[in-house]
Amino acid sequence: MYFTSETSFNGASERLFTLGDITGVLWAPAGATWPRPLILLGHGGGRHKKAPGLLAQAHRFLADGFAVAAIDAPGHGGRPASEQQQRMTEAIRERADAGEPIGPMFPGYNAVMAGWMVPEWRATLDALERGGHIGAVGYWGVSMGGAIGVPLAAAEPRITAAVLGLARSDGLTEAAASITIPVQFLVQWDDEVVPRDSALALFDSFGSAEKTLHANPGGHMGVPAFEVDSSARFFTRHLVSR
Amino acid sequence: MYFTSETSFNGASERLFTLGDITGVLWAPAGATWPRPLILLGHGGGRHKKAPGLLAQAHRFLADGFAVAAIDAPGHGGRPASEQQQRMTEAIRERADAGEPIGPMFPGYNAVMAGWMVPEWRATLDALERGGHIGAVGYWGVSMGGAIGVPLAAAEPRITAAVLGLARSDGLTEAAASITIPVQFLVQWDDEVVPRDSALALFDSFGSAEKTLHANPGGHMGVPAFEVDSSARFFTRHLVSR
Repeated sequence: MYFTSETSFNGASERLFTLGDITGVLWAPAGATWPRPLILLGHGGGRHKKAPGLLAQAHRFLADGFAVAAIDAPGHGGRPASEQQQRMTEAIRERADAGEPIGPMFPGYNAVMAGWMVPEWRATLDALERGGHIGAVGYWGVSMGGAIGVPLAAAEPRITAAVLGLARSDGLTEAAASITIPVQFLVQWDDEVVPRDSALALFDSFGSAEKTLHANPGGHMGVPAFEVDSSARFFTRHLVSR
Repeated sequence: MYFTSETSFNGASERLFTLGDITGVLWAPAGATWPRPLILLGHGGGRHKKAPGLLAQAHRFLADGFAVAAIDAPGHGGRPASEQQQRMTEAIRERADAGEPIGPMFPGYNAVMAGWMVPEWRATLDALERGGHIGAVGYWGVSMGGAIGVPLAAAEPRITAAVLGLARSDGLTEAAASITIPVQFLVQWDDEVVPRDSALALFDSFGSAEKTLHANPGGHMGVPAFEVDSSARFFTRHLVSR
């Protein structure tokens, strides 16, 4: 893991890093000591590690004392897309142009992305651990970040609390059933790409004794701002106050 | 409204009152000035205004600076039950003794209770308002307290935020559709007396632009303690920070 730049904003430090092909960022509160509780932020499809919404969310978590790490998905945020990924993205775009629903395409696309990103997230955790950066670890991701977060949380024992959501159950119920860490799960009640029943089925399938569904009105992109506060409190409850 | 006793506990004041047949309690934080934000606490069936769970919850809200008022339902907490209510209660008990599900009895029972309690809550608010006790008003009630809270919030414009839940949709969707204040709605995912679909249908029917469903695993009586904190923050957001 090579840190390629270090800047600061409102006292928080931001360090860009590379790890093989992975491009990522590690944020820390002003004057942070290590190790400390760390939140992994998984971005959605078409976004990247420093997309505005994700950045605002990172700063909310920093304000509560967490370190935050994010990596770009392949084909996102300046990382090149493989031919396979280009073909998948093109197929989704063609379907959208034809006015057909694209939601049913996501499980297949996200499964391929998870096949790449679960090992990338784990390698990132390995490197951060070698650098002494890892206390308790949480994962936050919705939409593509949620569909990747389910197999990631199932595979990675260092993750001990997760906020997930905005994802269909297709192909994810088995991994979800093996997850036993506390989960907060976001549903948009009028999601245009994730059918309500499919989202509820995914929530239903988590094996966690503590899991909470938060559903709000509106479409896929309309998660209300107060859910970020709620996520921060969820992570504080499980990663800090114990 | 006659205050019949005043005591204090951990600095908070507790004043018991009567208003006609109604028996109630008004709690206030230490050194409270009036008017201040007020939360109405509606108890569940078979409970009363100072049942242990409700009392703990009142103290949680007091800690955040709210005043809290609760009244006993007819036939609860020492208030006499009418012949009609005795017949209803007996019918539910017979059904339970016969090993049959009692959940389907609740909408009818709760509708009768709401017919009595909506005017009682409104009279209580009138009296508290005359006493200068009313700032912004919220209502918290689940199970019977939720089934009463829906028509109450629909009828009473002084209530501007409500936490409701653990109730079937039967007979409540029309009143719910007329509610436009922010609502936080609690669902127990494995509720043995409220079918999941019926609870989700009631959430779906609220007319509120801001409504949030919080669903947790477990049965009717198993709402996790962290939901009380979440309710307190919901009321702070809507009754205080504006």
